[in-house]
Amino acid sequence: MAAPKKDDLSNLSFILNKPNEVTFSDRPKPTLSSPHDVLVAVNYTGICGSDIHYYLHGAIGHFVVKDPMVLGHESSGTVIEAGEGVSSLKVGDRVAIEPGYPCRRCHDCRAGQYNLCPEMAFAATPPYDGTLTGIWSAPADFCYKLPDNVSLQEGALIEPLAVAVHIVKQAIITPGQSVVVMGAGPVGLLCAAVAKAYGASKVVSVDIVQSKLDFAKDFAATHTYSSQRVSPEENAKNILELVGLPRGVDAVIDASGAEPSIQTSLHTVRMGGTYVQGGMGKPDINFPIMALCLKEVTAKGSFRYGAGDYQLAVELVATGKVDVKKLVTATVAFEKAEEAFKKVKEGEAIKVLIAGPNEKI
Amino acid sequence: MAAPKKDDLSNLSFILNKPNEVTFSDRPKPTLSSPHDVLVAVNYTGICGSDIHYYLHGAIGHFVVKDPMVLGHESSGTVIEAGEGVSSLKVGDRVAIEPGYPCRRCHDCRAGQYNLCPEMAFAATPPYDGTLTGIWSAPADFCYKLPDNVSLQEGALIEPLAVAVHIVKQAIITPGQSVVVMGAGPVGLLCAAVAKAYGASKVVSVDIVQSKLDFAKDFAATHTYSSQRVSPEENAKNILELVGLPRGVDAVIDASGAEPSIQTSLHTVRMGGTYVQGGMGKPDINFPIMALCLKEVTAKGSFRYGAGDYQLAVELVATGKVDVKKLVTATVAFEKAEEAFKKVKEGEAIKVLIAGPNEKI
Amino acid sequence: MAAPKKDDLSNLSFILNKPNEVTFSDRPKPTLSSPHDVLVAVNYTGICGSDIHYYLHGAIGHFVVKDPMVLGHESSGTVIEAGEGVSSLKVGDRVAIEPGYPCRRCHDCRAGQYNLCPEMAFAATPPYDGTLTGIWSAPADFCYKLPDNVSLQEGALIEPLAVAVHIVKQAIITPGQSVVVMGAGPVGLLCAAVAKAYGASKVVSVDIVQSKLDFAKDFAATHTYSSQRVSPEENAKNILELVGLPRGVDAVIDASGAEPSIQTSLHTVRMGGTYVQGGMGKPDINFPIMALCLKEVTAKGSFRYGAGDYQLAVELVATGKVDVKKLVTATVAFEKAEEAFKKVKEGEAIKVLIAGPNEKI
Amino acid sequence: MAAPKKDDLSNLSFILNKPNEVTFSDRPKPTLSSPHDVLVAVNYTGICGSDIHYYLHGAIGHFVVKDPMVLGHESSGTVIEAGEGVSSLKVGDRVAIEPGYPCRRCHDCRAGQYNLCPEMAFAATPPYDGTLTGIWSAPADFCYKLPDNVSLQEGALIEPLAVAVHIVKQAIITPGQSVVVMGAGPVGLLCAAVAKAYGASKVVSVDIVQSKLDFAKDFAATHTYSSQRVSPEENAKNILELVGLPRGVDAVIDASGAEPSIQTSLHTVRMGGTYVQGGMGKPDINFPIMALCLKEVTAKGSFRYGAGDYQLAVELVATGKVDVKKLVTATVAFEKAEEAFKKVKEGEAIKVLIAGPNEKI
Repeated sequence: MAAPKKDDLSNLSFILNKPNEVTFSDRPKPTLSSPHDVLVAVNYTGICGSDIHYYLHGAIGHFVVKDPMVLGHESSGTVIEAGEGVSSLKVGDRVAIEPGYPCRRCHDCRAGQYNLCPEMAFAATPPYDGTLTGIWSAPADFCYKLPDNVSLQEGALIEPLAVAVHIVKQAIITPGQSVVVMGAGPVGLLCAAVAKAYGASKVVSVDIVQSKLDFAKDFAATHTYSSQRVSPEENAKNILELVGLPRGVDAVIDASGAEPSIQTSLHTVRMGGTYVQGGMGKPDINFPIMALCLKEVTAKGSFRYGAGDYQLAVELVATGKVDVKKLVTATVAFEKAEEAFKKVKEGEAIKVLIAGPNEKI
Repeated sequence: MAAPKKDDLSNLSFILNKPNEVTFSDRPKPTLSSPHDVLVAVNYTGICGSDIHYYLHGAIGHFVVKDPMVLGHESSGTVIEAGEGVSSLKVGDRVAIEPGYPCRRCHDCRAGQYNLCPEMAFAATPPYDGTLTGIWSAPADFCYKLPDNVSLQEGALIEPLAVAVHIVKQAIITPGQSVVVMGAGPVGLLCAAVAKAYGASKVVSVDIVQSKLDFAKDFAATHTYSSQRVSPEENAKNILELVGLPRGVDAVIDASGAEPSIQTSLHTVRMGGTYVQGGMGKPDINFPIMALCLKEVTAKGSFRYGAGDYQLAVELVATGKVDVKKLVTATVAFEKAEEAFKKVKEGEAIKVLIAGPNEKI
Repeated sequence: MAAPKKDDLSNLSFILNKPNEVTFSDRPKPTLSSPHDVLVAVNYTGICGSDIHYYLHGAIGHFVVKDPMVLGHESSGTVIEAGEGVSSLKVGDRVAIEPGYPCRRCHDCRAGQYNLCPEMAFAATPPYDGTLTGIWSAPADFCYKLPDNVSLQEGALIEPLAVAVHIVKQAIITPGQSVVVMGAGPVGLLCAAVAKAYGASKVVSVDIVQSKLDFAKDFAATHTYSSQRVSPEENAKNILELVGLPRGVDAVIDASGAEPSIQTSLHTVRMGGTYVQGGMGKPDINFPIMALCLKEVTAKGSFRYGAGDYQLAVELVATGKVDVKKLVTATVAFEKAEEAFKKVKEGEAIKVLIAGPNEKI
Repeated sequence: MAAPKKDDLSNLSFILNKPNEVTFSDRPKPTLSSPHDVLVAVNYTGICGSDIHYYLHGAIGHFVVKDPMVLGHESSGTVIEAGEGVSSLKVGDRVAIEPGYPCRRCHDCRAGQYNLCPEMAFAATPPYDGTLTGIWSAPADFCYKLPDNVSLQEGALIEPLAVAVHIVKQAIITPGQSVVVMGAGPVGLLCAAVAKAYGASKVVSVDIVQSKLDFAKDFAATHTYSSQRVSPEENAKNILELVGLPRGVDAVIDASGAEPSIQTSLHTVRMGGTYVQGGMGKPDINFPIMALCLKEVTAKGSFRYGAGDYQLAVELVATGKVDVKKLVTATVAFEKAEEAFKKVKEGEAIKVLIAGPNEKI
């Protein structure tokens, strides 16, 4: 199939003006700003919790939407133009788009931790526009060619999968280990699946919604636990009885951001084990610091994704180790973007994809 | 000098009966329980915060003193008898005594983390007696020969130095780095000194007592900061201005256990940096979890010491890199043990040594 | 099924007197030498290349058989007696036997690297007797209970699988990586399978015998390469073309010990990649040191197995990730031990199991 | 002192036409090629072994000088122009120049290993010109501001010090460890000094030239050993007796590239220890592979330097931990560059600096 031509494409964009007020607007089409860049026609974009948060509140922490901002950052697309310095991609290639671009020059970038770059330009994080648009311009090395057996819909799920890959890498999971994942939303589900791909023998999904746990069991978890209204210590004890590991599990990943889950995490992990905070909630919480100290727990934050994460996410889908398709509740036309946001906000869906404005569905 | 003979030695012991009630009693002398053990005449014992805590409260967490218990665990001594399987030590050797003995058979022991052994028998931790006694029996591999240029008084300080070594190892400090140490008590001071031995260029001691900071500056710190009654964010900002590192320091060690210090720690560490919780205070505190997550901080607990820590502590003293003598405020006779405890309780001393019951001072 | 009773069991043993001269002899039955030990009736024992080497040459390096020595060290068994200090096992438990016992007291043991213990007592390594005997005495923590779904025949293969686990751990393989394994003998085959369990996407088995490569393809390899009589550089180039990775693979494991394979390994690994030497051959070889230096390769030796390796080996079999049964070419009665050795020597089998002297087959 | 102006500066360059034939030529002055670049007037340049090798042979391995090439890559300079995107440096700043520029876009660059970048443009490595010139153009983030207490002559030695920093980082040396450094040329001497800065207690310099060993003892080594014409095993035994560590040292760094030194390295390192190949010699050598395997040695190559290495090198000089001035045998005027090369070739100097063409000496 021939790649679409730039002149034939719309650059209609889905824009947040202020909390709860969105519009569609035909923005000027981007041009290549470097010989190392490519232009990509966006095919599909998933909706993320942060998109919803901006949509509802206009801000996340100190990131405040001041000017109208295009939403969206979980996208796949098709290369329609490639700079003369680009050798890794060619027109027509189907790609997963990594949506954040670091400076490449600061110490963090040079040391291999570009996700910590203080000059990161990240899609749909003010003041940077997002990918719910027709044509996206990106450095070629941040666009990852999809193998033939990976669809463009799956390509839009590489972003949340890369988030999960990064979290699981932080947890340093090795074959035979036991892992508890707090939260069975998209990222929690993907963490469970990636943990299994890393060889974890026991993967427990924990949530308060039974239907999510049922999905988790089908998707990746070897065990599920429905959190009770009891103390963190008791929930932890219940989880450990469930998996038959009274001394604690090797790793706990919190993909919920919820205070009780984080507290339970510290009581569930074994001495010398690892706990990774992947989800975001309240900035300050009541935290069992003595458990961290006495058990010599290694606690780590996880923020977005870095070198190798997108590549591994694509590989996990291509090799069938993570079946991201199962997470797609619905795919809607670009014009229905606001409805899709509302649907996700209501918790009626795991993952909704919005087709690009040039995509027929 | 000839080693003392067992028959000539008293085994007078300093015993906690219940909170605030101590006695001296001549306990039966121990015998070798394994061919790999040695008997050691105790020369000097330092007083630790945990000793004080048991003395005052009779318990630490779920460790409760039910039966009378000999106090003390920071000791040096002289070998008076060696089992037939012992080749590393001989009668007359002066040693630093590591006071906790793991099972050697559980997974943690075999994997090199014996400090996490669930069957650890640790001196002066109920139900195990401590080292404020005349003769101590220990596995030979937990007694470390002191080089000629290290005194027995210094030998009694190897224990707290090993605590600091373990904490600094958890922080993975490398040459050129910047380190903040919260708290300028004995362990905090030693952490600062060990951090310098690991090559840290900037070492900031933080406390609320100016005299402790003055001592810290003389002992090891390159900078000191007196904590203000302001928010953790502001204290962090002040510290970072002081060292000229607005983006944060490489590592923060909390050796205070105080809630505001821990909160400040998370705001002082740089993105991708390390924070180690070495001091113990309240079991649960208000904690800036979002800072941990967004900055991808690695947070670690530190509990006692493990393989190689005592050896390195001895080496740091022998090579003059850490001058532990400076920490000794006073050395008192065994009979004055209770007075010494009271003195330390009142905060009138950094470190007080109690001579063994067979030691003339 | 009731566990056999010691009195009912023979302790017939298969003994190497000198090169090529073996006998059977009924040795005195062992007794528990520690309350932490167990007695195990040996059920099955695999034959290892080192057994064959001792059988033929009476020595490996500076390990020389001076007195008659029982052969064998790859065994499974059934607990027939447990010391009073043993809580992890009970009479009747079916176990895989780890055949080397470290001192637990040296620095390497305490630091978690007991395989490097200089006082290691390893079965069938002079002067220590091996496991081709009726009853074996071992510390309980070196006997690993087999889950119900793992047979005693599979249990005898846990030892070589643990060797492979240790090698692959040294190679630090993570999901999505590419791995080349030189040699398709038992250890090479198991390395390929373990590498896949660690998530490797591409696993290339290399050998000079086509039938072994065919087996490898069926067993675990995604690709196979038959080594040619060309330069190491050319063989490397061919392998890299085969997998489509012109810049090199992430990790190379040499399980052959053959000089040309080792040379090829260094030319096959990518810049910054890892090469592990698992097989033993000539003590000194011609080696491409410049490739190691310029490519910043990390090269590691691998020697036996250590903490966690046996547990993971059992888990990999129990979860079906490694199907060790496929490697068993034949199982023979104890009386046919010498025939079995000759068969393995001739290269007519992958793995031959010898039933214990009390086992009916 | 005001920074020099570009118009006032010569761009005289020292050029290798073919083996043993050099000329001086006034090359066109460079201009800024990116807003992130700076122009630097070169003050001092050290002569490296690789410069000598190109001078004599016109090639190193497959890097062949086909067109005339400016020599030199160990330089300090003064910023004379800064692109508009540069905030880290300003005109007049004195800097150490990192002379190799990676692509910043390949996987190695993004993963923090830019020294492995296949598109690296490295000074005085064909086809790229070197720094023995008047004005050098470089990305600002590859120029490191020298603190006031570091001279420009010292600045020219940051490059070889960064090589040593990278080697020592590969060896993962921690306080209290024992290190042997093979070779007491400039890089070997600097490795010894950096190992001490990393806290090594015992640092043994090994060479065949006694005067170099005398210098090493004065410069950084705690012990020295003059290699004998005996077997590698015997030389290793002698070294280990010298330091009183019969079981081997923690780390061995080969900074010689000589075959017997590399062989000795493997026999000198302890079980589980680390050996780093830092020097380059013959591409293939006879190598004790069995020692690597049985002792589970970690062997690593080291190639140039990467993220953080230059910063640490500057810090080590600024804090007085490494006194690079001692290595400077002579500083000569630019016009005497060829004489200087000959002097170094004859082995009559440790390090000779060549002043820039605009520098009066």
